Amino acid sequence: MINIGVIGYGYWGANLLRNFAESLATRPHVVVDPDPARLEVAQRRYQGVKTATDIHDIIDDPALDAVAIATPVSTHFDLAMTALRAGKHVWLEKPMTETSAQARQLIEEAEKRDLILLVDHTFIYTGAIRKMREIVASGDLGDVYYYDSTRINLGLFQRDVNVICDLAVHDFSILDFLLDEHPVAVTASGTTHFSGVPENLAYVTLFYSSGKIAHVNVNWLAPVKVRQILLGGSKKMIVYDDMAASEKIKVYDSGVKVTTSPQEIYQLLVGYRTGDMWAPKIDTTEALRIASEHFAKCIETGAAPVTDGRLGLRVVEVIEAATTSMHGRGETVQIEARGMKSWSPLSI
Amino acid sequence: MINIGVIGYGYWGANLLRNFAESLATRPHVVVDPDPARLEVAQRRYQGVKTATDIHDIIDDPALDAVAIATPVSTHFDLAMTALRAGKHVWLEKPMTETSAQARQLIEEAEKRDLILLVDHTFIYTGAIRKMREIVASGDLGDVYYYDSTRINLGLFQRDVNVICDLAVHDFSILDFLLDEHPVAVTASGTTHFSGVPENLAYVTLFYSSGKIAHVNVNWLAPVKVRQILLGGSKKMIVYDDMAASEKIKVYDSGVKVTTSPQEIYQLLVGYRTGDMWAPKIDTTEALRIASEHFAKCIETGAAPVTDGRLGLRVVEVIEAATTSMHGRGETVQIEARGMKSWSPLSI
Amino acid sequence: MINIGVIGYGYWGANLLRNFAESLATRPHVVVDPDPARLEVAQRRYQGVKTATDIHDIIDDPALDAVAIATPVSTHFDLAMTALRAGKHVWLEKPMTETSAQARQLIEEAEKRDLILLVDHTFIYTGAIRKMREIVASGDLGDVYYYDSTRINLGLFQRDVNVICDLAVHDFSILDFLLDEHPVAVTASGTTHFSGVPENLAYVTLFYSSGKIAHVNVNWLAPVKVRQILLGGSKKMIVYDDMAASEKIKVYDSGVKVTTSPQEIYQLLVGYRTGDMWAPKIDTTEALRIASEHFAKCIETGAAPVTDGRLGLRVVEVIEAATTSMHGRGETVQIEARGMKSWSPLSI
Amino acid sequence: MINIGVIGYGYWGANLLRNFAESLATRPHVVVDPDPARLEVAQRRYQGVKTATDIHDIIDDPALDAVAIATPVSTHFDLAMTALRAGKHVWLEKPMTETSAQARQLIEEAEKRDLILLVDHTFIYTGAIRKMREIVASGDLGDVYYYDSTRINLGLFQRDVNVICDLAVHDFSILDFLLDEHPVAVTASGTTHFSGVPENLAYVTLFYSSGKIAHVNVNWLAPVKVRQILLGGSKKMIVYDDMAASEKIKVYDSGVKVTTSPQEIYQLLVGYRTGDMWAPKIDTTEALRIASEHFAKCIETGAAPVTDGRLGLRVVEVIEAATTSMHGRGETVQIEARGMKSWSPLSI
Repeated sequence: MINIGVIGYGYWGANLLRNFAESLATRPHVVVDPDPARLEVAQRRYQGVKTATDIHDIIDDPALDAVAIATPVSTHFDLAMTALRAGKHVWLEKPMTETSAQARQLIEEAEKRDLILLVDHTFIYTGAIRKMREIVASGDLGDVYYYDSTRINLGLFQRDVNVICDLAVHDFSILDFLLDEHPVAVTASGTTHFSGVPENLAYVTLFYSSGKIAHVNVNWLAPVKVRQILLGGSKKMIVYDDMAASEKIKVYDSGVKVTTSPQEIYQLLVGYRTGDMWAPKIDTTEALRIASEHFAKCIETGAAPVTDGRLGLRVVEVIEAATTSMHGRGETVQIEARGMKSWSPLSI
Repeated sequence: MINIGVIGYGYWGANLLRNFAESLATRPHVVVDPDPARLEVAQRRYQGVKTATDIHDIIDDPALDAVAIATPVSTHFDLAMTALRAGKHVWLEKPMTETSAQARQLIEEAEKRDLILLVDHTFIYTGAIRKMREIVASGDLGDVYYYDSTRINLGLFQRDVNVICDLAVHDFSILDFLLDEHPVAVTASGTTHFSGVPENLAYVTLFYSSGKIAHVNVNWLAPVKVRQILLGGSKKMIVYDDMAASEKIKVYDSGVKVTTSPQEIYQLLVGYRTGDMWAPKIDTTEALRIASEHFAKCIETGAAPVTDGRLGLRVVEVIEAATTSMHGRGETVQIEARGMKSWSPLSI
Repeated sequence: MINIGVIGYGYWGANLLRNFAESLATRPHVVVDPDPARLEVAQRRYQGVKTATDIHDIIDDPALDAVAIATPVSTHFDLAMTALRAGKHVWLEKPMTETSAQARQLIEEAEKRDLILLVDHTFIYTGAIRKMREIVASGDLGDVYYYDSTRINLGLFQRDVNVICDLAVHDFSILDFLLDEHPVAVTASGTTHFSGVPENLAYVTLFYSSGKIAHVNVNWLAPVKVRQILLGGSKKMIVYDDMAASEKIKVYDSGVKVTTSPQEIYQLLVGYRTGDMWAPKIDTTEALRIASEHFAKCIETGAAPVTDGRLGLRVVEVIEAATTSMHGRGETVQIEARGMKSWSPLSI
Repeated sequence: MINIGVIGYGYWGANLLRNFAESLATRPHVVVDPDPARLEVAQRRYQGVKTATDIHDIIDDPALDAVAIATPVSTHFDLAMTALRAGKHVWLEKPMTETSAQARQLIEEAEKRDLILLVDHTFIYTGAIRKMREIVASGDLGDVYYYDSTRINLGLFQRDVNVICDLAVHDFSILDFLLDEHPVAVTASGTTHFSGVPENLAYVTLFYSSGKIAHVNVNWLAPVKVRQILLGGSKKMIVYDDMAASEKIKVYDSGVKVTTSPQEIYQLLVGYRTGDMWAPKIDTTEALRIASEHFAKCIETGAAPVTDGRLGLRVVEVIEAATTSMHGRGETVQIEARGMKSWSPLSI
């Protein structure tokens, strides 16, 4: 049983508290938030949990094993560094930090102190993404050709981060998890329609040295909510529709075959084939519950989390590069090639 | 009654012949195709129509008022120029020509000879797009913020044109029709997964001097067919789903309101509102029928078609710029600012 | 602030407790359940609420104003009668009782003691059904022609009630709420595919003296979940899809017009027209929250709840008649005509 | 090559003519219709086909092998009998005749003369229904529990037949084709909302001696078009959505398992399981084309068509029983048990 203090009781902090409370592997002891009204709501729901407005009620409490940080991104670095220096394991919301330099410092500090640092890229713990990883790893898709994601809805605008940081971040982590390859370049376009507010829509393209291409369309100003990923392979293709009530993952036995017939006018070089479609059963356990228990287990065993600081860093690097490109109206920005985590059998 | 010769009896040429035959305003006299098997099919269906393999059976026939050209793009310029020089009105499939220079020559030739030159950007004649134009023109959307189109499916690969030429061309013409503004720059990324074949997926972003942004996602290698346009405005937003069996156009009374509350941490600057949705009745007349009759009427009255050579030229210019950007891996390419057609009341 | 004791902490009892806890108008004091494990869960979540296994911890507690009963139907009558006789207001889950005779006794007892008796036909408190009522009451539909409901899914089979009691009960209450008319006859067919288990699918048709007809298709053995109501009128028609993520209510400006053209062979007497579709914004407040506050307000003011014992009784009468017909393999069963509640302006 | 005369050039007659013309196995020679305007349309499209207003131009033409009858139901018997007596093979639209007595006479006449009599229950020739038959016959569904069909839309009202005759007829033929069992009883309810017009909505339930149950919901007055069949089995279940652009057939590995745990209060006897879903590839050849060629082949070989007069008769018997029940407001009507066609391997 891991004792946890939670910093920040906003929308996501409330989800954290609920999951830490309902899991048998974790127990929330203290929740800190600057807003007394939020704390009152937390207190009404969880009468055994202590509430406080000062983070030192968490940092200095020797009974706490870990700290979960669910605050605005601009505060992540300071809070996480303080927690690590106090010897606490850290659960950090995404994106990990504002800059890759900060992310590197946190990784170093955690490693020096043998502390677990988990970045909450929640999607990776969903049944759907784990199933996609399983299918990709099995080789059933053949060569992966492209990844194409749409994340649009009428969303609350954020003051401190742009839409890439808020929504495309999910795709950057999913790509890191699904593919055994890191993007080498990015081009992004985006705009804001309100002065003084960060970009509210953006289109990001990632290039891989293998020829793979990934595209992400994110938009806070769309009248309908879409959460859809296409993953095209040489043998099969996957459509993941996260808004579907059931059959979120569909695997299409469809593809393209190159024909060799003589080239005349009207002649096509490449034809297509369509076959069956298959929607595998997906584990519907709440992703946060799986992540909570993974966090507790990593603390117990010392194993690195699937979404460790290194994955978190790689995501921040892509966000940085994409934002630079967007501010340069689509100029291509290189991303440093780097070794990926080994693609060993997954054990979330 | 306009007498028409049709060059090319492929998939689209068959649609042209059927529409010219069923309309009371037009009559197909001759169909020319190099493939005798195709001609035999045409003959079986339309026994009164003459078939031939030599285009001079059309060009030299004084009984013909007009020529419809439904052949590969690479042949458009020569065939259209020949027809114009023979004094025929011309119906030309999209895209108009391979280069903007060719397009300019055709426009000049047609104007010199007072001949009608219609480029078959069919979408503009659909009930859905005409309804969208009507809504945009009414001001109901407020300021148009963005246009976002997805045209993906498992498509026949084409030897002579890339996917921008084949699919994004629709969006370039629709944008020209819907907006009273021309894009000033474009950035595009794309790739092919088969050597020797043009790009089979591409992502194109268009920039406008007003701050509008347009994005087009086209892909011949997707397992599902999507044909969707989002048009976001300051007051309302439209979703046009061309695959929907009914209610293709949905108008959302949704949007964003800038709030003025004091800025604290967690504070959002911009909130959203949602309201009713409205799906207007759409004219379901086949677009080609409307275009056929518009062509006949323009020939009779001498009026310029809605999709005249100038619109066709502007579309070719955007294709050229987008392809240049794609080959430069997303570099920004400027498009010359130019006067648009006057936005007079529409009379298709 | 109404003090409430909750009897039964199963799936629905947990929802009741949560709503009574979160509403400012109600406060749950005690929860009773025979299962200590359930009580432990309740205790963990709501540490201020007392738990007990004996209902007398509720019935005999003078601090409690009201009792909410969320137990199997077979226990409803005894528990509710005991609570009423102890002077408690009663919130009773649906269906109200096993027999209409029992329902009448409860109504009589509550009236004699001036106590509020609310039957939790939750659907009536949803934004969707309240919007439908508003549209019907406005006359916009014209004459209501038919009601057609499908409620199917792969459901947990119930030992003590058949699928009519479990699912069609929703439609019987919605019909009572939407229409100013009571059905006069019913015919029902159904079957079970497992020996010793009540009917798991049923088809029910209700007849009204005005000529209206209502049909309900309920099934616990369907691979997909459908929750759809069609309400057809002479001027407009409504489709209510409760599984839709948004636009649950769609109002179609479609209908039928009787034509008067001469009758020849092939001649149609009646044609159709299609027009716009409109999806009004729906209040998305949780229905149970609205019902909780309505209950508290009725207790304070003495007003009859919208879903009072009389509505509950009428629903039980229809269940009885439908079950009788089903056991008679579809024989028509008459329902006694009765005065409906006055259709005064609604004030939930 | 079978030479065919077509009687009736309405909506469906035009489809027949097109298919007979495009198939290499059949050739339309003459089309007869009382309406000269319709004949003119036919003539314009098929200049080699003779048109006439007198059916004797077909009946008396010795060059014709077969007659296709696409006229109102009330004329089916006389026209088909005349054609058979003239020695022609007969293609008859559904439903076969107004009465089962007439159907029996036609069967007898055809058998006496060794002529082919095909009733055009087109659905049976679709890829979707043939795939369903294949799955049922393979045993993959386990025991078939129920069939549940919804066929609703805003339809043209018909003067001479009710909605059962027009729409439920499809289900009666599909049931005959899918199941190796005939219904033994039927109950139906329905109504018309326009005086002097046949019933425009109906709900039909069929009972089988094995315990299977089938339900059909047909409605000409619905604002949305639905064409959906659920087929529930003990092992798997099928959903056939004919309005889906792709994946019309979905096979769910879902079902119910009877549990044997001790029966306490709240205890469920039967639980459910959910598994993968699978959408097999479907042959998309136009059903009429397959039926046309099947007709030609039966004429050549003398084999009985899959949709022969006996199948047509059984469908008419179910229509008669259902209509009788509907006019009796849902009274149960028995259907005579009868031997079904042998379930030999299918060879359409």
